[in-house]
Amino acid sequence: MRSIYCGQIREAHVGHSVQLVGWVNRRRDLGGVIFVQLRDREGLVQVVFDPDLQEVFDKANSLRAEFCVQIEGVVRARPESQVNADMATGAVEVLGKQLTIINKALPLPIALDDHQKNSEEARLKYRYLDLRRPEMTERLIFRAKVTGFVRRYLEAQGFLDIETPILTKATPEGARDYLVPSRTHKGKFFALPQSPQLFKQLLMVAGMDRYYQIVKCFRDEDLRADRQPEFTQIDIETSFLTAPEVRAITEGLVTELFEEMLGVKFDAFPTMTYLEAMTRFGSDKPDLRNPLEIVDVADLLAHVEFKVFNGPANDPKGRVAVIKVPGGASLSRKQLDDYQAFAGVYGAKGLPWLKVNDLSKGVEGLQSPILKFLDDQAIQGLLARLEVADGDLLLFGSDSYKVCTDALGALRLKLGEDLGFTRTEEWAPLWVVDFPMFEEDEGRLYALHHPFTAPLNASPEQLTADPLSTISNAYDMVLNGVELGGGSVRIHDNAMQQAVFKLLGISSEEAEEKFGFLLEALQYGAPVHAGLAFGLDRLVMLMTGASSIRDVMAFPKTTTAACPLTEAPSFANPQALEELSLAVKKTDA
Amino acid sequence: MRSIYCGQIREAHVGHSVQLVGWVNRRRDLGGVIFVQLRDREGLVQVVFDPDLQEVFDKANSLRAEFCVQIEGVVRARPESQVNADMATGAVEVLGKQLTIINKALPLPIALDDHQKNSEEARLKYRYLDLRRPEMTERLIFRAKVTGFVRRYLEAQGFLDIETPILTKATPEGARDYLVPSRTHKGKFFALPQSPQLFKQLLMVAGMDRYYQIVKCFRDEDLRADRQPEFTQIDIETSFLTAPEVRAITEGLVTELFEEMLGVKFDAFPTMTYLEAMTRFGSDKPDLRNPLEIVDVADLLAHVEFKVFNGPANDPKGRVAVIKVPGGASLSRKQLDDYQAFAGVYGAKGLPWLKVNDLSKGVEGLQSPILKFLDDQAIQGLLARLEVADGDLLLFGSDSYKVCTDALGALRLKLGEDLGFTRTEEWAPLWVVDFPMFEEDEGRLYALHHPFTAPLNASPEQLTADPLSTISNAYDMVLNGVELGGGSVRIHDNAMQQAVFKLLGISSEEAEEKFGFLLEALQYGAPVHAGLAFGLDRLVMLMTGASSIRDVMAFPKTTTAACPLTEAPSFANPQALEELSLAVKKTDA
Repeated sequence: MRSIYCGQIREAHVGHSVQLVGWVNRRRDLGGVIFVQLRDREGLVQVVFDPDLQEVFDKANSLRAEFCVQIEGVVRARPESQVNADMATGAVEVLGKQLTIINKALPLPIALDDHQKNSEEARLKYRYLDLRRPEMTERLIFRAKVTGFVRRYLEAQGFLDIETPILTKATPEGARDYLVPSRTHKGKFFALPQSPQLFKQLLMVAGMDRYYQIVKCFRDEDLRADRQPEFTQIDIETSFLTAPEVRAITEGLVTELFEEMLGVKFDAFPTMTYLEAMTRFGSDKPDLRNPLEIVDVADLLAHVEFKVFNGPANDPKGRVAVIKVPGGASLSRKQLDDYQAFAGVYGAKGLPWLKVNDLSKGVEGLQSPILKFLDDQAIQGLLARLEVADGDLLLFGSDSYKVCTDALGALRLKLGEDLGFTRTEEWAPLWVVDFPMFEEDEGRLYALHHPFTAPLNASPEQLTADPLSTISNAYDMVLNGVELGGGSVRIHDNAMQQAVFKLLGISSEEAEEKFGFLLEALQYGAPVHAGLAFGLDRLVMLMTGASSIRDVMAFPKTTTAACPLTEAPSFANPQALEELSLAVKKTDA
Repeated sequence: MRSIYCGQIREAHVGHSVQLVGWVNRRRDLGGVIFVQLRDREGLVQVVFDPDLQEVFDKANSLRAEFCVQIEGVVRARPESQVNADMATGAVEVLGKQLTIINKALPLPIALDDHQKNSEEARLKYRYLDLRRPEMTERLIFRAKVTGFVRRYLEAQGFLDIETPILTKATPEGARDYLVPSRTHKGKFFALPQSPQLFKQLLMVAGMDRYYQIVKCFRDEDLRADRQPEFTQIDIETSFLTAPEVRAITEGLVTELFEEMLGVKFDAFPTMTYLEAMTRFGSDKPDLRNPLEIVDVADLLAHVEFKVFNGPANDPKGRVAVIKVPGGASLSRKQLDDYQAFAGVYGAKGLPWLKVNDLSKGVEGLQSPILKFLDDQAIQGLLARLEVADGDLLLFGSDSYKVCTDALGALRLKLGEDLGFTRTEEWAPLWVVDFPMFEEDEGRLYALHHPFTAPLNASPEQLTADPLSTISNAYDMVLNGVELGGGSVRIHDNAMQQAVFKLLGISSEEAEEKFGFLLEALQYGAPVHAGLAFGLDRLVMLMTGASSIRDVMAFPKTTTAACPLTEAPSFANPQALEELSLAVKKTDA
């Protein structure tokens, strides 16, 4: 029914007859002539209906927005004055000779020309209309190109696309599992996978050597802006490769992907330890486009007669640090109060500040509510370490290590954005490595990555002797402050896996019940193996500049995990529940 | 850790040092020398450890089956007498110089050299070992190559890989849905999709033009040999293409796939109507490698004084038909009884037979328990229509159309296999088209494909006036008697969709509740659209000659929908059920 896509017609086609199919993007009557913008997946073209061709002109007169039509016509150059340089097809138009209405459209429930007017609820309810907006169509096309590129890259390197089950056993990887009741084993449940982690490890035990999958994963979490109940992972696992080798392959993938899709050339990614990232940037996924840094000053303030500083400065679990904001001395009291409130969200009890108005005046040139608590030694130390200049602002964090780091880390991002420090046109990828194996909370250990992550250069005995000092062989790829992917060398040794479970407080009975198959598999010649998983949705969101992962998914859910389009979830057939031997105890209104 | 895969070493590498990693497939001591067959994903190679290299020889002495090892050595030609032409690497061997044991293996719970000894339960429980068998490894590699080829083919033709949701709304497409309770909307459920049918149609309404996805689908059916709770579909949908155009694209895909993967060249697929397939082959997925056909003879037997024949022959809903088995006159009474029992499974009350022993003797040369019921006219008519020769056997079906057709259709397949008529080395693809829109059962209509299938050349009024005579615009691709894929032109018109729902006995309230979003979408300029879905598991099973789809899946479930490896499904955390507001009423032992 089509000889060419609307969006592909160019001056080279002038004089050609074309058959087009698509949707009426807009219809205008000007000077007795009807102009129809016809739209398909590849773009727009202007079609002109002339009253000289009475029959087709009359039919064109009945067209309304979003009618689906077939048009036969002849391509001609637009008059010079009407050339539209903003349109790919703006130099040409099609003189309509025949018109068939394939399907009419009722007046639209959402506006397609300016989606800002539509609520997200309405956009999701009429997703099939929302996706007609060129911006949305282009994102889905972009996403399809990304997955195609990723697949070709990995397959060229010997990775096998192997499917793992969606109906799996519950795993305790933090987030809640979605459960699926079994009919043939009443009272039992499958779980939807949070990731194919254990299956991909078993594929390595099976000798598959290089595995990848672009695969749906599921988390029944309370949703935040950037979370979805189902999301897509580029999942990778390899045998017999070291961590740097896995990083090289996946860095190559992302580097070539950005060059292919965006023409962006990356240098080799810098590698930064977790400790450095937390110290300098207050985050394990630092946004390196932002030049602001956190500088430790506990040693300079340990002696001052000011409890807010000397408490944390003398506590081994405390932290006292400063962000220097060039030019920040001009911030108003109101702005400083707002930043203090912002830091308060992260637990900071205050946000002491110091403005450097005029260094030539000495202490007189400084302005700060806490100036009276600082002696000359402290002041000179601060000015020197932070290399201050006139107009600078110092913002102080002083609290437990965690509160101080989190608050200043978040503040750094906000300041960078608010005050224009962050170079938003740049791309800043890096690797973060050398994570601790464990975090401690209320005397319990938690795996920083997951319990299958191998330690770096430690035996089971060494790990058990000093778990909190042990570094894991894990790595995260970070881009512009977003974690694009994370991975690790996995434990391939039964004794090491048992040691980790024990440290995590998993009894041997529990380990056997939940992970018995993994522990058993590690006893039959399991190879060394390592892998990584990328969040595809986030990757495409970053690459397309979309503001939400929902904008790069065809049919996302709302933040309450519902689908306004199909009205899922919905009540189940009572007979189905009977067959599953399930009773609903309480139903939300 | 590796310079080359084991299975890739050839004579060209003689003299090269190599680093290998893999598994000990076998270890033998012969004449004071240790021979290790080392195995990786790509194959086997022989490694020789010589007692001259004492240290590595001693280490090699400790190797057991399935130890995971790294070996450094030098490739050398095998002595002429030891060349193994059955092995890809059989002309060479590696002299082992260094050996590192990466991981030991306990004695194996299943045999890897001869899997016939293992129960399927044991194979699934130790799947990570079962997959090490080269036959299984090769199938997964083959499958990955198939999906890669399919993706490249479709993407080159402008198909966009677009993901549709796994957490969806229940659909009434026959098989039971797997349900997923919602935590944020207590008492409500998601369903896992039986196919992305409605979503792909909505993507067409959204203007995506050409969609594909290799996607998991789910059916909570009582499993038969060739069914799995989750299976994979190559799902395709297009806008503005006719049924023959969709068939051309998908036939091209399968044709090129077979040539690429198997070197098999297909001619253009024959197209056969549903009616012809049922009439000649008793099946809507005829195996054309089997030359036996079903021949209607009701007109020849309507007048005979034999109730078994003249009843169905004079009933418009009856059928009387014959399969001629060349050489079948030599079948024993026992064999004929067995075939009668076989036909009985399909409801046939008997299986009258007639042997043609010697045509030159006239009726004397025929042998049949029913000969006495047949007059000369009937006999001559049969002999002529079936073009019989000495040694032929005629097997009669006479019953309702359905029983006769099903029984002879199944018998035809069994005879073809048992007696060697079926040319099992051949490939026989075809299209079956012109299916009825509906089947009738106890006064109710059922959609033969699904309720979104468009009729061929009928208005809603014409369809409603005579639904059972209306042909649908559907098509199935059949290969060797297996339905590889099925598809149709879809309904793109709201009135037509409503008419079909009404004919199927779906009230307008029910239609609104279940499919309101589809009916609404059809009112906003829905394009004409058509598609097809292939069963990937079956396709790969056929191509690899596997006997079950379980053998082409990495981690299949048992026939009771369980996973012996992970022991899924399992009991859920009571707290999780509490959060879902669910109670289990009864638990299977």
